[in-house]
Amino acid sequence: MNFPSKILEKAVEEISGLPGIGKKSAVRLALYLLKQPQSQGIVLGEAIKKLVSDIKYCKVCHNFSDEEICEICAHHNRHDELLCVVEDVRDVMAIEKTGQYYGKYLVLGGKLSPMEGIGPQQLRIESLMQKVENGLVKEVIFALSATMEGDTTVYYLYKKMKHLPLNFSIIARGISVGDELEYADEVSLGRSIRNRQTYDGAS
Amino acid sequence: MNFPSKILEKAVEEISGLPGIGKKSAVRLALYLLKQPQSQGIVLGEAIKKLVSDIKYCKVCHNFSDEEICEICAHHNRHDELLCVVEDVRDVMAIEKTGQYYGKYLVLGGKLSPMEGIGPQQLRIESLMQKVENGLVKEVIFALSATMEGDTTVYYLYKKMKHLPLNFSIIARGISVGDELEYADEVSLGRSIRNRQTYDGAS
Ligand SMILES: [Zn+2]
Ligand SMILES: [Zn+2]
Repeated sequence: MNFPSKILEKAVEEISGLPGIGKKSAVRLALYLLKQPQSQGIVLGEAIKKLVSDIKYCKVCHNFSDEEICEICAHHNRHDELLCVVEDVRDVMAIEKTGQYYGKYLVLGGKLSPMEGIGPQQLRIESLMQKVENGLVKEVIFALSATMEGDTTVYYLYKKMKHLPLNFSIIARGISVGDELEYADEVSLGRSIRNRQTYDGAS
Repeated sequence: MNFPSKILEKAVEEISGLPGIGKKSAVRLALYLLKQPQSQGIVLGEAIKKLVSDIKYCKVCHNFSDEEICEICAHHNRHDELLCVVEDVRDVMAIEKTGQYYGKYLVLGGKLSPMEGIGPQQLRIESLMQKVENGLVKEVIFALSATMEGDTTVYYLYKKMKHLPLNFSIIARGISVGDELEYADEVSLGRSIRNRQTYDGAS
């Protein structure tokens, strides 16, 4: 592509560096921004800069946060005896959206996947152990993807924690087997966390 | 969606304001940026801000430009006697990419479309007339979309200019009838501008 402007070329180059956005789409997006009120591009650019500069990770649960400790961990009405283990921040957002859960979270940062080179070292298992060893947690709820890797991870974590005085549960498979959690619809996901089942490493 | 961070929420809101990017994709893009080196988001944000703040339109041809007059208009090796009329800046980029054209351009800013409320007033016809009345232009090449609206626009412009001592041509319909110009492949588009045909308002 021959660009009439280095400024345009640079913007297109950076926009097309995003996943799923090819060069043609990037040109379209850039030209779209040029047709909108200037403020839209200014605000967008500023929001992206602020996103990567100012966002923090909660020191307790590894959720994103604007403070050291996230809103959920800091909230006095959230039940400390419930700890929901999820793979990803998106899963926290998905579960929060259902309005069916009032406990705390632990964001693992992924699931065990030898294929992708993700072993226990890559997950926040130390944070999880700290959390469950503090004596406040009574029930660990596994809310991982209903895939083989999700199941393997659940089993691995269960074995690490089963010596502790904890109840374990796993969200009901109202979500179809094979589903990635984050794609589940809100209602099914809400139902499946409400109907969570005791987990004993055997199911 | 319940966002764990106002900063994330704002970024997602702004990203999903772009056409073709829904809220889910915006979340994905934001989380992607958070996983990349911080510099990528900074550079992207800055490039977008600069795009909408600093880009100019060439005073002569209405192409985008970093200066008052664009590189093409300012280039002493580009032939002043050829003037290629296109709808859009993307079309300039597409034709430049073929490497088959060495003249100048005039970016109309669209095509006549009563359906979309685009009449002659919305197009840069005044700039076109100024350009062709300066005595340097010998041939006007119509490179508009091969659609009914494109054809109507060509005919309208031809009638406005036919009293002038100009040759008129239209890019060969190597591109399929009904094609939007900007989707044409590079080779076909290059061939069609090389094989442009004389236009007399009758074809
Ligand atoms: Zn937290
Ligand atoms: Zn120009």
